Amino acid sequence: MEIYLDNSATTKCAEEVIDIVVKVMREDYGNPSSKHIKGVEAEKYIKEAAAIIAKSLKCQEKEILFTSGGTESNNMAIIETALANQRRGKHVIVSSVEHSSVKEPFNYLEEQGFRVTYLPVDRQGHVSLEALKEALCDETILVSVMYANNEIGTIEPIQEIGEIVKKFNPDIIYHVDAIQAYGKFKIIPKKLNIDLLSVSGHKIHGPKGTGFLYIKEKTKIKPLILGGGQQKAMRSGTENVPGIAGLGKAAELIYDNKFDEKINKMYELRNYFINGLKKISDVTINGCEDRESAPHVVSASFAGIKSEVLLHALEDKGIYVSSGSACSSNRPGLSSTLRAIGLPEELQDATIRFSFCFDTTKEELDITLQTLKELLPVLRKYKRH
Amino acid sequence: MEIYLDNSATTKCAEEVIDIVVKVMREDYGNPSSKHIKGVEAEKYIKEAAAIIAKSLKCQEKEILFTSGGTESNNMAIIETALANQRRGKHVIVSSVEHSSVKEPFNYLEEQGFRVTYLPVDRQGHVSLEALKEALCDETILVSVMYANNEIGTIEPIQEIGEIVKKFNPDIIYHVDAIQAYGKFKIIPKKLNIDLLSVSGHKIHGPKGTGFLYIKEKTKIKPLILGGGQQKAMRSGTENVPGIAGLGKAAELIYDNKFDEKINKMYELRNYFINGLKKISDVTINGCEDRESAPHVVSASFAGIKSEVLLHALEDKGIYVSSGSACSSNRPGLSSTLRAIGLPEELQDATIRFSFCFDTTKEELDITLQTLKELLPVLRKYKRH
Repeated sequence: MEIYLDNSATTKCAEEVIDIVVKVMREDYGNPSSKHIKGVEAEKYIKEAAAIIAKSLKCQEKEILFTSGGTESNNMAIIETALANQRRGKHVIVSSVEHSSVKEPFNYLEEQGFRVTYLPVDRQGHVSLEALKEALCDETILVSVMYANNEIGTIEPIQEIGEIVKKFNPDIIYHVDAIQAYGKFKIIPKKLNIDLLSVSGHKIHGPKGTGFLYIKEKTKIKPLILGGGQQKAMRSGTENVPGIAGLGKAAELIYDNKFDEKINKMYELRNYFINGLKKISDVTINGCEDRESAPHVVSASFAGIKSEVLLHALEDKGIYVSSGSACSSNRPGLSSTLRAIGLPEELQDATIRFSFCFDTTKEELDITLQTLKELLPVLRKYKRH
Repeated sequence: MEIYLDNSATTKCAEEVIDIVVKVMREDYGNPSSKHIKGVEAEKYIKEAAAIIAKSLKCQEKEILFTSGGTESNNMAIIETALANQRRGKHVIVSSVEHSSVKEPFNYLEEQGFRVTYLPVDRQGHVSLEALKEALCDETILVSVMYANNEIGTIEPIQEIGEIVKKFNPDIIYHVDAIQAYGKFKIIPKKLNIDLLSVSGHKIHGPKGTGFLYIKEKTKIKPLILGGGQQKAMRSGTENVPGIAGLGKAAELIYDNKFDEKINKMYELRNYFINGLKKISDVTINGCEDRESAPHVVSASFAGIKSEVLLHALEDKGIYVSSGSACSSNRPGLSSTLRAIGLPEELQDATIRFSFCFDTTKEELDITLQTLKELLPVLRKYKRH
């Protein structure tokens, strides 16, 4: 038995995604830059994927830039807009609960002499709009806030932030890391005043090594990777055609006519699981309830139990979860999101993230709850000795 | 009938590569950063691929950094070593026949205030060692020369350059773009004094969107992409595990115990094809003969015929070739390599690149020669009217 509840770390590829990846690798292997039919055929896949994604965001196809993943999208969005716009000012704003692939680029900008304002969050992880209003100044050129938090699922007030930023100065560039949100929400960048939106393929049952950056028309930004001039010279390098085709397919599969139904089911499961967790003693749920959270993330702290111990105890039973964020597990130290929401230090190191996909079942969650009920007293007892 | 002679642009994926890509996508889809067994299993593929590649280069596994492709490898090798070492000097040296993914990063460095020396080449495209000796100075921190030219196949004097550079100053970093050479030569960076070596997956029957950068231990270089700290924080972002596994498999398949045999056969075919071309009137072969060239590239100029016209005429017969370099076909203008070797301007625009793979057959080349013999008089006649 395998119960995979680590879908915020990565998802299993959809079979239809694998099919198109294989088809392109085997049959339509041309280089899109080649002038003969093999090149033309390869380029078609890129155009089709861009069309699917553009439809899902209600944007133009030319506003989609394919990258090697969410991290590259975030790096380019932050570093290359800041550098391209620094003559207008060297002040940038970011929330204090961002993923490392956003945090590290801001650290880099700080080293380069930019002034960075880190916006505080409340106990649920919501960015303070008051702090944003105070931080905005004539020197501000970039604001970056994530859509849904990767560790606790909290949805940020993306629309309100966009309105505040653009009302203050329409030239300020607004970047949203939507890596945990795309595929879970209908996101329309234009409605939300978003200029740049980062997405990863492998979080939505697409291939690893794929992603895109939505770049609103006329946004001033430079390429991160230079060379042969592919993708209108905004991202050089032979396009990963099988990967891009797979990413397009993944987006198509998710944003079908059953999208709302699938998301509703996910929220039902999330509520069901949280209610189950609440019945267990000494469990703290982090983040928000119901529609104020992403539908697929449940963060829970189990007082008195090291998260890594619980993770491996669950693993022994075939249940795969994450302690904090998988993407930060290369770096020692506690989660900055859990610290930012003011979770007591002893609970920060006792936190598990359960993350679902569309295939997650009530039965799997029942088994997980039952397993927790059995494991927790044992682990707590063990700890006392 | 399809005769694909555009293998320098991209190659068809090997079936064994497709198999492992599919296996990882379907079964071992974990995030290598995850602490449970799904993560551990995924990480194994990365270690295995690194071991295969390290063996082929006789280097250490930890000296292999996986990237999204050759272009990213070149960008990181050039920009991030220059920036990391600029306190020692701001002079860099590069040949005048490099691929755009090398040229453009050097243009970027020039904009950033670096002094760039472009080494001239002879009629076959060999970098001038005299010019290199003259260019080296106390401020020099980086020298970059490609192993095999992507447009005409010429092999550069990589060993001699390494000796000259390191004799002048062992601290100068020596980068070699081996994107057209890895898989065709046994390259041992340590023997050649190479500090950084760029390789692309899709040029060796591996997946698109994959590549690596060999980084000699203790080389001072910074990451190009920042974030979660993957690959010892030298290249953040969830690793493209299926792609990396496929890249490792591609390297394993090429560097098997029949490597020399396969390469010898390729040289035989190349000689055969060149001899056939020479029998056709008004054909100029660019680059070098026999072992002084890469085994898979033949560049030929057909006086009086626009390369694009000939390319499409061959395409109509199911023969796929390239005019100049596919990777530069996004950019208008003539090839800088053909200009640098002093090819008359009227021939620069009349040049076709034929590039082979291990599966290319004598029969395919016979058909191509026969087709050329039939097409050329017609196209030349047509042009006169």
